[in-house]
Amino acid sequence: MNYSNFFIPTLREVPADAVIASHRLMFRAGLLRKLANGLFAYLPLGLRSFRKVEQIIREEMSAIGALELKPSVVVPAELWKESGRWDSMGESMLRVKNRLDNDFVVSPTAEEVFTAIVRDELSSYRQLPLALYQINTKFRDEIRPRYGVMRGREFTMKDAYSWHADEQSLDETYQAFGRAYRQIFKRCGLSVIPVKADSGAMGGSGSEEFMVESDVGDNTLILCKCGYAANVEKAACAPDFTAQTLESAKAAASNTPAIEKIDTPNVKTIEELCAFLKMEPQSFIKTLIYRAVNVELDLSSAPGCAKLERKKPSQEAPAVYAEAFVAVAIRGDLDVNEVKLAAILKAAEVSLASDTDVTRLTNAPVGFAGPVGLTTLPLVIDTSVTAMNDAVTGALAKDLHYNHVAYGRDFEAFITEDIRTVKAGDKCVQCGGELYTKMGNELGHIFKLGYKYTRSMNVSYLDVNGKSQMPTMGCYGIGVDRTLASVIEEHHDDAGIVWPVSIAPFHVIIVPIKYDGVMKETADKLAAELTKAGIEVLLDDRNERPGVKFNDADLTGIPYRVVIGDKGLALSTPQVEVKRRSEKENFMLDLEKAAAELTGKIKEELAKL
Amino acid sequence: MNYSNFFIPTLREVPADAVIASHRLMFRAGLLRKLANGLFAYLPLGLRSFRKVEQIIREEMSAIGALELKPSVVVPAELWKESGRWDSMGESMLRVKNRLDNDFVVSPTAEEVFTAIVRDELSSYRQLPLALYQINTKFRDEIRPRYGVMRGREFTMKDAYSWHADEQSLDETYQAFGRAYRQIFKRCGLSVIPVKADSGAMGGSGSEEFMVESDVGDNTLILCKCGYAANVEKAACAPDFTAQTLESAKAAASNTPAIEKIDTPNVKTIEELCAFLKMEPQSFIKTLIYRAVNVELDLSSAPGCAKLERKKPSQEAPAVYAEAFVAVAIRGDLDVNEVKLAAILKAAEVSLASDTDVTRLTNAPVGFAGPVGLTTLPLVIDTSVTAMNDAVTGALAKDLHYNHVAYGRDFEAFITEDIRTVKAGDKCVQCGGELYTKMGNELGHIFKLGYKYTRSMNVSYLDVNGKSQMPTMGCYGIGVDRTLASVIEEHHDDAGIVWPVSIAPFHVIIVPIKYDGVMKETADKLAAELTKAGIEVLLDDRNERPGVKFNDADLTGIPYRVVIGDKGLALSTPQVEVKRRSEKENFMLDLEKAAAELTGKIKEELAKL
Repeated sequence: MNYSNFFIPTLREVPADAVIASHRLMFRAGLLRKLANGLFAYLPLGLRSFRKVEQIIREEMSAIGALELKPSVVVPAELWKESGRWDSMGESMLRVKNRLDNDFVVSPTAEEVFTAIVRDELSSYRQLPLALYQINTKFRDEIRPRYGVMRGREFTMKDAYSWHADEQSLDETYQAFGRAYRQIFKRCGLSVIPVKADSGAMGGSGSEEFMVESDVGDNTLILCKCGYAANVEKAACAPDFTAQTLESAKAAASNTPAIEKIDTPNVKTIEELCAFLKMEPQSFIKTLIYRAVNVELDLSSAPGCAKLERKKPSQEAPAVYAEAFVAVAIRGDLDVNEVKLAAILKAAEVSLASDTDVTRLTNAPVGFAGPVGLTTLPLVIDTSVTAMNDAVTGALAKDLHYNHVAYGRDFEAFITEDIRTVKAGDKCVQCGGELYTKMGNELGHIFKLGYKYTRSMNVSYLDVNGKSQMPTMGCYGIGVDRTLASVIEEHHDDAGIVWPVSIAPFHVIIVPIKYDGVMKETADKLAAELTKAGIEVLLDDRNERPGVKFNDADLTGIPYRVVIGDKGLALSTPQVEVKRRSEKENFMLDLEKAAAELTGKIKEELAKL
Repeated sequence: MNYSNFFIPTLREVPADAVIASHRLMFRAGLLRKLANGLFAYLPLGLRSFRKVEQIIREEMSAIGALELKPSVVVPAELWKESGRWDSMGESMLRVKNRLDNDFVVSPTAEEVFTAIVRDELSSYRQLPLALYQINTKFRDEIRPRYGVMRGREFTMKDAYSWHADEQSLDETYQAFGRAYRQIFKRCGLSVIPVKADSGAMGGSGSEEFMVESDVGDNTLILCKCGYAANVEKAACAPDFTAQTLESAKAAASNTPAIEKIDTPNVKTIEELCAFLKMEPQSFIKTLIYRAVNVELDLSSAPGCAKLERKKPSQEAPAVYAEAFVAVAIRGDLDVNEVKLAAILKAAEVSLASDTDVTRLTNAPVGFAGPVGLTTLPLVIDTSVTAMNDAVTGALAKDLHYNHVAYGRDFEAFITEDIRTVKAGDKCVQCGGELYTKMGNELGHIFKLGYKYTRSMNVSYLDVNGKSQMPTMGCYGIGVDRTLASVIEEHHDDAGIVWPVSIAPFHVIIVPIKYDGVMKETADKLAAELTKAGIEVLLDDRNERPGVKFNDADLTGIPYRVVIGDKGLALSTPQVEVKRRSEKENFMLDLEKAAAELTGKIKEELAKL
C-alpha cells in the first residue's frame, strides 16, 4: 500500500480532552476521529489494527469450539421484559421507540437474545454444551464518556454465552474461556492481571476479570507480589485480629468491666469521639444503617422484619423484599465493602440509609447507632467485631455512647461475615505479604451465570432419561476497542505508538529518502517481495522531507522501518537501513537479503506472541 | 468442522410469513432466526455465507482503491441537522434521545458522517480523489418489514462515498464502482440487471441501480431484448406519435374545425366520456392537477405564480417554493410518471392535488380540468399532447367539455417534456422492439451526488492555485443481506439451496453412511486432506439415517456431497460417491484421487466466478 493512496491524517495537535496516551495517539496517528462525545469513527489505519484484534479473538473462540452468530444490534424490548432487565438495567441502556410505538433496545449486552435463540432450538442433552458468540456493536449511555474508546458510548464487544447440562460442564467451558482469554491478550502483546471479581449487574457467581493497569482505570485492584490479585470489591486480606466464636467471645467477656453509659455531648464522628475519649478508632464499633433493594435473603426470623413482605416479581423469579434495612457493625478503623454486603444479602443494590430513615430506625440522631439493644433491625457484623471484648459504641440515644461493650455478652449478630474493604498495607491472605493497590481497566470478564436467564426465560431440554431439565449458563465478554487502546497504553513512547507485530496496521514501512529513480525502483521491488511473502507493507511515497517521514513512521508505530537511500544503494553490496520501532539503534541489511531477513524476523515475532 | 459440533437447526416447518424462497430456505436450512418483525439473527451457517459476501465486496472495494472506515452506528443528530435531512428523512429514520436529552440517529445511511470526517481532514487537491467506505449496521424503520432479510428493519450495507476536484474525476470513480459492482455480483453468482434509475431522496443526478428479478420486488423494470433496461420511474420509450413544435402545431391546426363546447352531463371519467362521445381515449387530453413540495424550478414567469414566494431554508441551500400547484396534460391513454414530473419541477415530492384544491384552482369540479383558458396554473404537457390537433378536453366548468381542441392554436404550455409512464408493449427507444416489464429488487446503487452535501456541510479544499474550492461527491451502496438472499432466490430447487461455491458456507459435505470403523477413518482422513488444501469441509458425523443426512445436505445446499459407504470402500480400488448439488447424477471417484480432484474442481469454479 502506498502512503499517498492511503488516508492517514496525522496531527501535531493533541485534542484538548485527550488525557491518556492511547486517546492522544489514536487521534495524532490518524487511527480515530470523534463524531460526538463517546462516539468515534475508526479511520483506515486504525481499522486495520482493530480488525486484527477481532481476528485474534475469532481464532481463539473458534479454537475452543465457540460458534459465531450475528443478531441485530437493535432488539425488541419484549426479551428484556421477560428477563426483568427492562426495569433493572437503569438509564445506561438506550431505549428507542419506533414509529409504530414499539419499544426497542440498542443492545448493551445480549444474554436475552442468545437465550431466546437457544430456547427455541434446544431440545436434547445431545446439543449440550453449546457456546455461541458475536463480535458486534454495543451501546451504553455513559453519562461521562471519556478517554477516547476506553470509555465510549458505542463500542464493539465480543460476547459469548454457553449452556450446560451440569456444573462440571459449565466449569470446563469456563476454564476453556479463561485459557482462551489469556491466549488472546498474550497474542495482542498485553500484560493482563486476571482477578477474581464480583459479577455485578450480570448476576450469578464465579467470575474472573481480566484487567490492565491504568492510571485512569475504573477499578481498584488489590495486589500482592505473590500473585494474589483481586478487585477491591471482592478482595480478602489476612485479618489483623483473631476472630472469635460466640461462645469464646462470651467467655472472654467475663474479664470485661460492666457496660456503662458515657455522655458524649456534640460528638458525632469517630474522629471527634477518639479525641474526646482519647482512644484509637480500633477500640470503637462503628454501626451504619444500610438500605437494600430487592433482597433475596430470608429475613423472616431477623429482628424488625416480621412484617416485611416478600413478593415474586414474576412467575419464574425468586421472591424478594423490595426494600429492607440492616444495621452493619464493623471495627472503627475499617470500611464496609458494599459489594460484599450486597452479596451477603443477595440484594440488587445497597446504599447508606437516609438520615430520616436512620433516625426513624435507631430512635436517635445520626452518629449514635450501635449494636447494643438494637431490636428494630437485623444486625450484620464484620468478623473484626467478634474480636472486640471491650469497645465503645453508640447507645441509640442523642449524645450517649456505651463503654466496655463486649460481643457475645452485650449483643449478638444476625449475620457474621467478612464485609471489610481491603486497602493497601493490609496483609495478603495467601502469603502474608503487604498488599498494594493499582487502578485497572477491565478488558474481559468471564462469569458463571447459573440459571438466572434460563429460569426467567424458561429454557429447557430433555435429559438422557427424557426428563425436562433447565440448563445452566456462562457468559464471557471482551471489549475490542478497549483491548486495542490498552495495547497502545502498554506499547508507546514519546514519539508515538510502538505496535506489537500482531496488532500493527502494517508490519513494515519502507521510506525511500526520495521516491525517485533507483530509490523508487528499489522501494517498489522490496515492497513487492515482502508483500508476496505475506508481509504487510506501507510504502511512504510522499514528496516530503525524510524528517517528516521518519516522524510519521514513529508516530504510527509500524514495527520495522526500512530506509532506502542513495548512499546505501551505491555500496558495492547495496544496503538498506533497518530500524525496529522498539529499539534505538538501526542496522544495515544487504538489499539482496532484506526481504527474506525481514520476513523471517516478523514471522518469528508473530509466532512468539 | 464436524456437523455435531456445529449449530444447524434445520426445520421441516416453514414459518407462516415466509412467502419467498430465500426467506423460507434461510429459516429451514438453519441460516437465520427472527428476533422480531424485521429483526434477525444469523446463525453460524448463515453467517459463514454472509461473511463471504462481505469479503467479496471488501476485495473489490480494495481493488479500486476505496478505503474502509468504521464510524459508529448511532450518530449525533447535529450532522443530520446540518445537511437538512433531520427534517427531510421522514419517519423511516430511527431517532433516539439519550439520558441527557441529546438527539441521535441510528444510521440509515452515512453521507453526513463521511462528509463531516472528510471536511475536517481535506485540505489540498493532492488528497483527491478520495473514496471511503464502511460495511456496517443500518436501520430503516420499515412500516411493513417482510420477505425475511430482503426487507428488514436492520441490515448491513456497504456504503461508499467519494470526493473529487472535478466532474471527470467523479465520472472515472463512478465508472470504476460500476465495474466493481458488476464484478461483485458476478462473483456472488448473481444475474443483475443494471438500470438507469432516479436517485430519489439521496439527491443528485447520474445514477445506476443494480437489480435482480423478483416477483415481490419493489421496483418495476422496463426491459427490452436488445438490453435496454430502466426503472419505470425513469424509463423512456419510442413515441407512437410525431411530436410537433409550437410552430408546426399552429400550422397543422389550420385544418382543425373551430373549438366548440359540448355538454357532457354527469360524465366524469375518461371511460364515461369515451362511451358518451363514442371516441377512443387517444383523442382526449387528460389534465391532472398536482401539488409539488419544495420546488426549485423558477416559476416567476408562470401563470398563477406571480405571488408565489421563494425562500432559502438555510444559508447554503437553494431557494425553493414550499408548495406549488401545476396542471399536467397528457394524451388520454397515457399515464403521468410522477418521478419524471418531480425531476422537471426540481421538486422534493409531487402528488395529486386534493379535490378541494382542484375545485379552487380550476373553478370546476374534479373531472373537468383542461388546458384551454387555464390562467391559474403553470401548464406542463407531455410531448404526446403536441401531436394532438383535434382533441377533446375538459372545459373548466361542470358538465362541459371542449371538442376540436388543437395544441398551439387553443393553448400553449409552460413546459413541454416527456412525462409518460412507459408500459409493457411500448416500443424500445433503442431498437424499436417491444418492451416488457419485470419486478425487481435493488441490490446496489451508484450515484453522482454532486455538491448537495459538500455545499450544505461546507466542505472545501485548496486547488493547485491555492484557491478554495468545493469538491463534488459520489455515493455507492450495496445491501449485503439482500445480496445474500438474492443468491438463494437465484440458486435453489425444491429440495433446498444450491449455493454457488463462492458463497457456500462450506464447499464439501462428507456423508459417511455410518460414522464408524473404516468409514469414519476414511471420512476423517478425506476431511483433513481437503481442509489442508484450503477446502471448507462439513463432516456429517451424526448418528442419523443416510436419508436424513442427504436431505439436510440438499437443504443446506453445500456444492459437493461426498458419500462414503462400505461398498465403495470394499472395491479393489476404493471409491467414494460424489454428487454436485446442482446436478442430478452422481459419479464415483477413486478415494485416492478424491481430495485432489475435488480441490481442482472447486478452485476452478471459484476462479470462474
